[in-house]
Amino acid sequence: MTRPQATVLRVLAPERILRLEDDAVVVLDQRRLPDEEVELACRTAAEVAEAIRSMAVRGAPAIGIAAAYGYALAVEHGENLEQASAVLEAARPTAANLAWALREMRSAANPAARARELHAEEVERCRRMSAHAAALLAPESRALTHCNTGGLATGGQGTALGALQEAWAQGLVRHVLVDETRPLLQGARLTAWELEMAGIPHTVVADAAAGHLLANGEVDCVLVGADRIAANGDTANKIGTYPLAVLADRHGVPFYVVAPTSTIDPETPRGSEIPIEERDPREVSSRFPARNPAFDVTPAELISAIVTELGVHRRPYAESLVRPVPA
Amino acid sequence: MTRPQATVLRVLAPERILRLEDDAVVVLDQRRLPDEEVELACRTAAEVAEAIRSMAVRGAPAIGIAAAYGYALAVEHGENLEQASAVLEAARPTAANLAWALREMRSAANPAARARELHAEEVERCRRMSAHAAALLAPESRALTHCNTGGLATGGQGTALGALQEAWAQGLVRHVLVDETRPLLQGARLTAWELEMAGIPHTVVADAAAGHLLANGEVDCVLVGADRIAANGDTANKIGTYPLAVLADRHGVPFYVVAPTSTIDPETPRGSEIPIEERDPREVSSRFPARNPAFDVTPAELISAIVTELGVHRRPYAESLVRPVPA
Repeated sequence: MTRPQATVLRVLAPERILRLEDDAVVVLDQRRLPDEEVELACRTAAEVAEAIRSMAVRGAPAIGIAAAYGYALAVEHGENLEQASAVLEAARPTAANLAWALREMRSAANPAARARELHAEEVERCRRMSAHAAALLAPESRALTHCNTGGLATGGQGTALGALQEAWAQGLVRHVLVDETRPLLQGARLTAWELEMAGIPHTVVADAAAGHLLANGEVDCVLVGADRIAANGDTANKIGTYPLAVLADRHGVPFYVVAPTSTIDPETPRGSEIPIEERDPREVSSRFPARNPAFDVTPAELISAIVTELGVHRRPYAESLVRPVPA
Repeated sequence: MTRPQATVLRVLAPERILRLEDDAVVVLDQRRLPDEEVELACRTAAEVAEAIRSMAVRGAPAIGIAAAYGYALAVEHGENLEQASAVLEAARPTAANLAWALREMRSAANPAARARELHAEEVERCRRMSAHAAALLAPESRALTHCNTGGLATGGQGTALGALQEAWAQGLVRHVLVDETRPLLQGARLTAWELEMAGIPHTVVADAAAGHLLANGEVDCVLVGADRIAANGDTANKIGTYPLAVLADRHGVPFYVVAPTSTIDPETPRGSEIPIEERDPREVSSRFPARNPAFDVTPAELISAIVTELGVHRRPYAESLVRPVPA
C-alpha cells in the first residue's frame, strides 16, 4: 500500500477550473476532458449560460460560481441584468446553487469582487466538508462514487470526491470505484482523470455493475454529491444515484451525501417538488427514440448522513439541516 | 393507439440469426448491428468459439445453438471432438445453455441433424414461453427490459423480448422502455433495432435511469432473460439485472424472468455458485483502470415468476422449476 506522504496530491487550482477575466468567464472545457485540456472563454452572460447548458462547465457548485461570474461580466459590460440573470438561471433547472448564486449577486455592491468571493467561499466550504466527511470513513475503506464531484464540479477540491481525497491522504481510503455515469460519462472521463492526477487507486465500472459489487461485499461506503437538497433531506443528484442508495441500504453500506449548504433549498419542502431536467435524448441514442432524465431523487430515509461545510447532518434532516450535529 | 393487426410484425428468421452450412457456421454479426447487417462465417469450432467469446453471437440460448452447430461442424470436418467441445464450452463461463447444448451433441447419432433440431426446439420453446409470459401482463402495460432477449439472443422469437412482442400483438403492451445495457449496448443497439423492426413503440434509457422511471410510476412490469438459473431460482443475467429487481421490488412492480428450461442448471444449487464472467475492462474504459463483470445474480426472492416453455413457475422455485404451475 503506497501512502500518499510519498506523493504530492495533485489537484486542480480553482482558477484553472473557472475564473473571471476582464472580458470573459474562462472555463476548462469539461466536454473535452480527459483527451484535451482546453479553455473556453465566454464573453457574455448568454455564452456562460450556453457553457452551463452544454456542460462545458458542470457540477452544482461550479455552475453556481459560473453563473456568478457570468452575472459579474454582464454588469461590467452593461448588459441588461434582468435578462442576463434570467438566461443564466434557466440554463439548468435542477441545481439549487444556480438560483442561490444569482440571488447573492443581485444584492452585491461590487459584483466582480463578490463573484470571486463566492468562489473563494466555495473553495473553503469544500475544504471543510471534505474534512467532516472523511472523518466518517473507517481506515482502508473501499469507496464507490457516482458522477464527478471533484474540483471540476466545484471550483474547489470537491464535495464527495474532495472527501475521498482527504480520506486518502489520511489513509482512510484504499480504493475508489467510479461509476462511469452515462450518458455523458462524468465518472469515466472526469472523476477517473482527477483520481489519476491525485494518484489515488481507482477502477471505472459500468453504472449497472454497482449492485453486483455491493452484493459481493466489495464496497464499504458510497459517497455522492448533490444538485439540490430539499428541506426534508430528499436529495436530487445525477441520474443513477437513487438506485445506488437503494442498493447500499439493502447491503447495509453507508450512503453519504456531501454538498455545500448552497445546495440546500429550504423553499423546496420535499424531493417530489424538485424539477428534474430532461436533457437531449440524443445524448443517450442518436439512432433510436430515447429519454434522458439527468437527475433522480434519493429519499432522505436512504441517506446515512448529509455532510456540509457546517458538519454532519443526521436524520431527521428537517431539523439537522438547520442545526448540524458535530461529526 | 395503433393496433398491430394493421402491421406485419417483422421478426428475424431463425436461419438469418444463425445456421449451419456445409463448411461453416454462419452468424449475423451482432457487433456490427444496427449499423450494418453482415454475416460472419466460422469455419472451425475454434472460430465459432471466438464468435461466441467476442459476442458476434450472444444471448444464452443463441450461444447454445452456436456451440451445437460448431460441434456439428467439427464432426463434419473430422476435428478432435474433445478439443472442439472444450474450446466451445470455455468460450463463455456463465450461460448454462452452452454446456447443455454440448452435452446434447456428444450423444447425438447425427450431429448436424441434431444441432438443427436443437435450434428448431429452441424456436418452439421461445414461442411457448412467450405465450405463457404474455398472459401475465395487464392490458396496455408499459414494460421495461434489459439487454437483448429477442431473436438475436435466441435464434427464435426471443425470451423476454419474445414475450413482449407476443403481448404487443395481443394489446397487452403499450410501450417498451429499453435499458441501453452498458458497456456493449445490447439494449440500445439490438433490442431497439428488433423493436423498431417489429413496429413496437420503444424508448432507450441509460441503465441508471430505471430507478427514476420506476419511482415515477412509469413502469408496470420488468421482463428480463437469463443466462443461468440455479436450482433454487437465483438467476444470473446481464450485469444490471439485479439492481432492476431490487428497484422493482421496492416499487411493487412485477419482475419476470423469461428463459427456456435449457437455462436452468439443476447442478448449481444457488446463485452464489454461478461463475460470473469478467470481460475485458477495455470494453468499459480504454483510458483508465476498469472492471467489467458481465453478469450479476438476482436472488429468487426478488423474482415474481420464472416463465419457461413449460409454463409459469412461482416461488418456491426449488419445487416449481421441476413442476410448473399453469399460468
